[in-house]
Amino acid sequence: MRWNGWGDPERAKPLPRAVQALLPLLLGRVRKPAAPVELANVRLTPSALSGEDLDAFRGAVGDENVSAAPEARIYHSGGRSTLDLLRRRAIEQEAPDAVVRPGSHEEVRACLDLATARKIAVIPFGGGTSVVGALDPERGAQLAVVSLDLRRLSGLIHLDPVSGEAVLAAGTTGPEAESLLAEHGFELGHYPQSFRYATIGGFAAARSSGQNSAGYGRFDTMVTGIRVATPTGDLELGRSPGSAAGPDLIRVFLGSEGIFGVITEVKVRVHPTPQHRVFEAWTFPNFAAGAEGLRQVAQHASGPTVIRLSDEAETAVSLAQVGKIGKALAKGASVVTVYEGEGIPLRRARTSELLRAAGGTSSGEGDAAEWMKGRFDGPYLRDSLLDAGVFCETLETATTWAKLSELRSAVEASLKDGFSAIGSKSYVMCHVSHIYPTGASLYFTVLASIREDPLEAWLKIKAHTNDSILAAGGTISHHHAVGRDHAPWLREEVGETGIRILEAIKRELDPHGILNPGAVIAADSASSSAQDS
Amino acid sequence: MRWNGWGDPERAKPLPRAVQALLPLLLGRVRKPAAPVELANVRLTPSALSGEDLDAFRGAVGDENVSAAPEARIYHSGGRSTLDLLRRRAIEQEAPDAVVRPGSHEEVRACLDLATARKIAVIPFGGGTSVVGALDPERGAQLAVVSLDLRRLSGLIHLDPVSGEAVLAAGTTGPEAESLLAEHGFELGHYPQSFRYATIGGFAAARSSGQNSAGYGRFDTMVTGIRVATPTGDLELGRSPGSAAGPDLIRVFLGSEGIFGVITEVKVRVHPTPQHRVFEAWTFPNFAAGAEGLRQVAQHASGPTVIRLSDEAETAVSLAQVGKIGKALAKGASVVTVYEGEGIPLRRARTSELLRAAGGTSSGEGDAAEWMKGRFDGPYLRDSLLDAGVFCETLETATTWAKLSELRSAVEASLKDGFSAIGSKSYVMCHVSHIYPTGASLYFTVLASIREDPLEAWLKIKAHTNDSILAAGGTISHHHAVGRDHAPWLREEVGETGIRILEAIKRELDPHGILNPGAVIAADSASSSAQDS
Repeated sequence: MRWNGWGDPERAKPLPRAVQALLPLLLGRVRKPAAPVELANVRLTPSALSGEDLDAFRGAVGDENVSAAPEARIYHSGGRSTLDLLRRRAIEQEAPDAVVRPGSHEEVRACLDLATARKIAVIPFGGGTSVVGALDPERGAQLAVVSLDLRRLSGLIHLDPVSGEAVLAAGTTGPEAESLLAEHGFELGHYPQSFRYATIGGFAAARSSGQNSAGYGRFDTMVTGIRVATPTGDLELGRSPGSAAGPDLIRVFLGSEGIFGVITEVKVRVHPTPQHRVFEAWTFPNFAAGAEGLRQVAQHASGPTVIRLSDEAETAVSLAQVGKIGKALAKGASVVTVYEGEGIPLRRARTSELLRAAGGTSSGEGDAAEWMKGRFDGPYLRDSLLDAGVFCETLETATTWAKLSELRSAVEASLKDGFSAIGSKSYVMCHVSHIYPTGASLYFTVLASIREDPLEAWLKIKAHTNDSILAAGGTISHHHAVGRDHAPWLREEVGETGIRILEAIKRELDPHGILNPGAVIAADSASSSAQDS
Repeated sequence: MRWNGWGDPERAKPLPRAVQALLPLLLGRVRKPAAPVELANVRLTPSALSGEDLDAFRGAVGDENVSAAPEARIYHSGGRSTLDLLRRRAIEQEAPDAVVRPGSHEEVRACLDLATARKIAVIPFGGGTSVVGALDPERGAQLAVVSLDLRRLSGLIHLDPVSGEAVLAAGTTGPEAESLLAEHGFELGHYPQSFRYATIGGFAAARSSGQNSAGYGRFDTMVTGIRVATPTGDLELGRSPGSAAGPDLIRVFLGSEGIFGVITEVKVRVHPTPQHRVFEAWTFPNFAAGAEGLRQVAQHASGPTVIRLSDEAETAVSLAQVGKIGKALAKGASVVTVYEGEGIPLRRARTSELLRAAGGTSSGEGDAAEWMKGRFDGPYLRDSLLDAGVFCETLETATTWAKLSELRSAVEASLKDGFSAIGSKSYVMCHVSHIYPTGASLYFTVLASIREDPLEAWLKIKAHTNDSILAAGGTISHHHAVGRDHAPWLREEVGETGIRILEAIKRELDPHGILNPGAVIAADSASSSAQDS
């Protein structure tokens, strides 16, 4: 992964000519910013670790698995939100004081013991794809901070083909997991946009949801067990797919983003690799009609594996299909459906019937297959947009079907008003990509011309937008998680009593506060409005 | 509900003649025990509450909603396990010191405040159907104990027909909920055996699972929100069907059995009342073949609403169909399937194909419709068996498909050996009634001739059996929950670190320990083997 952008430099997507032509129409005049800083020119805060500290970690994980080199530190200095990428463009940058790479549960355990004894904060690091500030090198009350890179915890530990359960090491990436399972004829089927880099442990810690969620569920419903190392003890949970043995403690760790412990193994439900795949694209007169179609599909369990609806703005520029941008300004709201596995003709027939009744028109395979080809490539385009002077960021939420349209309008208005107030023209697109019987997610992409200080401007606009989300009844995150960026709003969403529960668990498992300080639980009760002012 | 037995005395099921004839064959000589004690002859421990205490509660909930009368106290003195029923046959009995019936969330809140100030333990009480000792009048470190009867919190608070979500007051019983929803064309579809008496709040607090779980999921997957009063603050959770806003705090309360707070409202997913229902019964050569059939159905999502498999012993005496017992000793292992809702022909065709491939033979509607008619009546029969001198109890667990047969054998052996060691002949039956892609539940019914002290004997046999369950990889409960009876084994199942998480939440929300002392979290680290000796 590039240190200051997304993914593999070989796969970089220069802006298509059509997009270059379209941008001024959407955003007005766009000024190309200064070139990004070179890695060699970045000035990092000096490492706060002593030679003894480093030797202690070397003793625990091996010399070659501890590094305080600038390259390693900067690579682990954050995630991949647009804020992260803007911060990577500065000369002065913060970074963890070292990177430590344990190779086993026991080495993780040893690192936590060392860190506690030496007052060193630990940021668990999987694929590095957080877009909510979960990886910021915050040391809290500790003397230093290390990034605990979990990529060496990799592999398929156990497969139970009868029960359809696999135990994967937490640092296994999406492609590694699928390739290991495929050797045995199985698939996990979890494909978030971060798939190529993110890890199994990260999916669990952040309650990820993938593009095939209509077929296989969100990641937290795939998890049937976990192994965790906390600063004060280990856990191994998950004896049954259903249990009434007290509260489900697995759920304490799903969404905990490394503040309670380090997930080292995850047991997941897997299914036989699907042998068939069918694509179908649809057009609706507008977003509302498309949303009604998706609601019918969700409530009648008609069974597509993927279903997503782009609103009029997203459909018009076809941003969902990176390769095609600007080809033609399509009208209405487009829907992509994909069916995998068995019984496709029947599932498709029922889904089609429902979509047609809601006002949809099938265009056959249409753009659906093309969407699938480009589905992990969105973040590459963001890099090119930033280089061209276009601010590009995404955010997401979810609510019930009854509140969905109102929530969408509230978020769109907040984003547009926010950019408008600082004299920037913006373009806001939205899609629904995760459906449930009772509601759905909303995923927004905003483009705007970059002004003087895009980072500060975005912090304010995002804060207002977060307020709007909660006011309209949405959740502060459907699948990006909380990190540090959403922590003040989590407090509002779950209330003081909810935060006290999280704090109590934190005190019990991590009494010295070494794990990911400042993530999930905001340090104090700073309200969102305090951030506004 | 009868104070010392199950349900409505009008519905009592005397033992059919055929059963009376069968029992000696299965169990040897059975001696009719002494007649149960009359309510008027029971000597209750005197109430430990002062007149001031009672007045304080009367001030909070109204005079008519506080009672220290023996009838009210004894009715609330426990649940409906066989242990409970045996205890109800003694002259000396323990009971809560009073029964308090709040009528709103605010009154619950006021009761918790009063109880904290006056050092009074509070046992939340819904339908009173716990079979794991969750309602024992244990006062812990408090001076007295009240039963907080939640039945006045009844009704449909809100229905969102677009999203298919309903908010129900926690004290609403199963039939009340279904009747209120039916007025609007909706159904919850949660039918545990306790359905006629148990409450929505109880379903949530105990992580219930109903007979239609193959179609509509276990209760914890139906819950989309909750409102809770804890001794130190309120919570209102549930903005979205899917969220990554930190750990799912709803799950902290599902399965908490009243130790963290009192659930006052539950938001649940509902679906349109099914218009069609089809029954089909199957026979398999043996349990293993039937289990393989159910696994195929679960892993291919073929879609029955109900599916259950009785092993050879249960099939032989047809105990699953109370009305028919002893009609004829059926051979093999029987399966009941029920389909509700839309698309039944296709779902049934696929399920039938899978069951046939696993060695099943359809007998058409067979006994399936009859099973459905009698499906809530099992507990009535237990009363008649106890009266006839036959010990009858149930227990349940779950695990992955790969371990299912071994777990079943281990439990059966433990039960039979346990009764054999005290010179009792026993008959052990088992069924699978909840299936998942990765595993299934096992539900056991044991009959045995009653010896001198059946209560003490059963405590020992159950302790050994619980050890066997955990040793064979099962969960200590799939849907009966933990209560006091399973608390030592919960500790073994989730480990010391898991228990510390529960204790930390408990300390934070209920620092004085007034809520259901001794439930879920065993008072000390008494191991299961300590109970054995």
